[in-house]
Amino acid sequence: MAFITLTTDFGTRQGSDGVLHGAIYRIAPRAVITDLSHHIRPQDIREANFVVNNSAFFFPAGTVHVIVVDPGVGTDRRPIAARIGEHFFVAPDNGVLTACLDRAGREGWTTEFVELDRPEYWLDAVTMTFHGRDLFSPVAAHLAAGVPLTEVGSPMGDPFTIPLWSATRAEDDSVSGEVIYIDDFGNAICSILPGEIAHLSPPDGVEVHLCGHSIDGMVQTFGDSEYGTDTLIALWDSSGYLLVSENNGTGGKVIKPTPGDPVVVRAKR
Amino acid sequence: MAFITLTTDFGTRQGSDGVLHGAIYRIAPRAVITDLSHHIRPQDIREANFVVNNSAFFFPAGTVHVIVVDPGVGTDRRPIAARIGEHFFVAPDNGVLTACLDRAGREGWTTEFVELDRPEYWLDAVTMTFHGRDLFSPVAAHLAAGVPLTEVGSPMGDPFTIPLWSATRAEDDSVSGEVIYIDDFGNAICSILPGEIAHLSPPDGVEVHLCGHSIDGMVQTFGDSEYGTDTLIALWDSSGYLLVSENNGTGGKVIKPTPGDPVVVRAKR
Amino acid sequence: MAFITLTTDFGTRQGSDGVLHGAIYRIAPRAVITDLSHHIRPQDIREANFVVNNSAFFFPAGTVHVIVVDPGVGTDRRPIAARIGEHFFVAPDNGVLTACLDRAGREGWTTEFVELDRPEYWLDAVTMTFHGRDLFSPVAAHLAAGVPLTEVGSPMGDPFTIPLWSATRAEDDSVSGEVIYIDDFGNAICSILPGEIAHLSPPDGVEVHLCGHSIDGMVQTFGDSEYGTDTLIALWDSSGYLLVSENNGTGGKVIKPTPGDPVVVRAKR
Repeated sequence: MAFITLTTDFGTRQGSDGVLHGAIYRIAPRAVITDLSHHIRPQDIREANFVVNNSAFFFPAGTVHVIVVDPGVGTDRRPIAARIGEHFFVAPDNGVLTACLDRAGREGWTTEFVELDRPEYWLDAVTMTFHGRDLFSPVAAHLAAGVPLTEVGSPMGDPFTIPLWSATRAEDDSVSGEVIYIDDFGNAICSILPGEIAHLSPPDGVEVHLCGHSIDGMVQTFGDSEYGTDTLIALWDSSGYLLVSENNGTGGKVIKPTPGDPVVVRAKR
Repeated sequence: MAFITLTTDFGTRQGSDGVLHGAIYRIAPRAVITDLSHHIRPQDIREANFVVNNSAFFFPAGTVHVIVVDPGVGTDRRPIAARIGEHFFVAPDNGVLTACLDRAGREGWTTEFVELDRPEYWLDAVTMTFHGRDLFSPVAAHLAAGVPLTEVGSPMGDPFTIPLWSATRAEDDSVSGEVIYIDDFGNAICSILPGEIAHLSPPDGVEVHLCGHSIDGMVQTFGDSEYGTDTLIALWDSSGYLLVSENNGTGGKVIKPTPGDPVVVRAKR
Repeated sequence: MAFITLTTDFGTRQGSDGVLHGAIYRIAPRAVITDLSHHIRPQDIREANFVVNNSAFFFPAGTVHVIVVDPGVGTDRRPIAARIGEHFFVAPDNGVLTACLDRAGREGWTTEFVELDRPEYWLDAVTMTFHGRDLFSPVAAHLAAGVPLTEVGSPMGDPFTIPLWSATRAEDDSVSGEVIYIDDFGNAICSILPGEIAHLSPPDGVEVHLCGHSIDGMVQTFGDSEYGTDTLIALWDSSGYLLVSENNGTGGKVIKPTPGDPVVVRAKR
């Protein structure tokens, strides 16, 4: 089987997400396509990093992941394809693969990159404004149909990367991070990983500070029953990151965090 | 073919709907997946009942329906799988199967339940907050790939059920119900079935009362032409229930019903 | 392979989009289904024309396109199926195929129509209000499974068409059109094609007027770097039409166009 995922900022109203399926099936009629998300905030390359890195590696080895968050479409930014470990990626060279490359570094996976400079693997007519349909999806379809990575483009060095979220350890026994993402339940996912606060003895040894509120300790899951409705709780999200949630609620009632807001985890006195 | 449907309250922005496809394809690469809805209102188990029961049984016999509306994820609520007639279901044991079980009772279908207590059918690492990805989808994939129901868990008695909508007949020749759901056209779907008002002689013998408005008689379909724009009409919805609509409109102009609002069908004097 | 696309105004909350998949798989278990869009504005037949015509012909030859924007469901409007060039369509006869038929005329494609009057190709029970599930999807499934067009209905003449957007050339060296669609980036897609303003010498010879603003000349793509943020730019959209965009922005800050707003392209003095 040849699996392809699609992540874009196109929305789902206009058919510009669906038409990618058509462009793929013309070349790879047996491809199996998953719409990972078409609701990345317009042109938000950081958000695309978060969404793709959370999900891509749960797909079978060999899956081709297409990412089209592409403010530079039609300019001289390069279209690229990559192998990262056992997965393939097709995207503009604008930093959208940064989180997956960071992961490859941590995991010791090999990587390989090509610049997509071979129009024989694109649609016959390529517009200036829709490379998702005209270039990226056709290349993904050829990869899914078995064309080797080194056939669809020319070898290149490391792709462009961008600064992403991170955590900073301070001398006063605290760790600072930022809100990465607000999910559909209104939960705030924050840029702090378990290893980064292990020296502060969570779950009971820490306080979490966000938006002027302080949370005493961490819990294991949403339904931990000693907490009332709309009580703020902190826990480890399924993405691996720190998550702040309004317990048994749907978020936004007690605090209204937004991406970029500072979060601090501090040792209790 | 092995068909799987997914119904969740995850939304479609974050990739947490799409990643379920990846978790399934790793185990059952030939599964055919339909996203039934990822827009159940957060944690709304009643709404999930309505949506799943309306659609599940239109799929081929043998389809596996995954339902993840799961406020109790990570707590001691049980994960379960069920056979209801010729369909399979994988879900938390929180009442989300109530409407399908009621239907099984009315139709005389056999049912069978297991508690999902066998981690060999789950992902290797199971988080406390995302059993949709780590437990329910993998089990569904194994069922779709042909593993018997009795292999993925241990037999159990009847699952947990919750009170759902219903209709009540009063002595004064009226039937009372409630609004179950507001659809995307702004129509109000109400908890009254044809058999429950047959003694009132619809379509012409009844008045329908909702939100302080009264509707004289029922029509057959939206476009019945003697009715002007924004006139309130009552008819039988494709779900089987009573539906109140603003004719040729898109709802919300004349009345703004919400789930739980009382509706009354009364014999004309 | 048998490809089917779905375009409706059902939204994606209620499962009425997903249930179409079930109705199809029961008849054509090997069909490959793409959701083109379920977010056509309720009952907006013009918008459905725009979305379907932009995307349908990128799918493989033989694809069956189902369009259910159907204010007249259950009335005497006819259900039809069509072959337009190498593609099949199943829809109500309410004008929803107009843009595809216009294209067939321009391209010289042959067309063929049948009225769907053979209930043996529908679900056993057909409701008055959900022909998408009960009639159109089953017919599409039969076509995808290889049943000839002339089997699913009786031959008929040309289907109903509606007036769509167009461009008008004036004596004073200007061309007038209208806004067809606002996309998810807030861009305005306008009813003017390259051939209709060729005599005005774009890109540099023209001014574009919309919502009281004037744009000097046209650019090639969004990222043309000499333009600042929120500067209005005009360019050719991937749909072929004139597009007005707020550069490097996401629309709606400088002007807030809506479908139907007049746009004028004028020769510079």
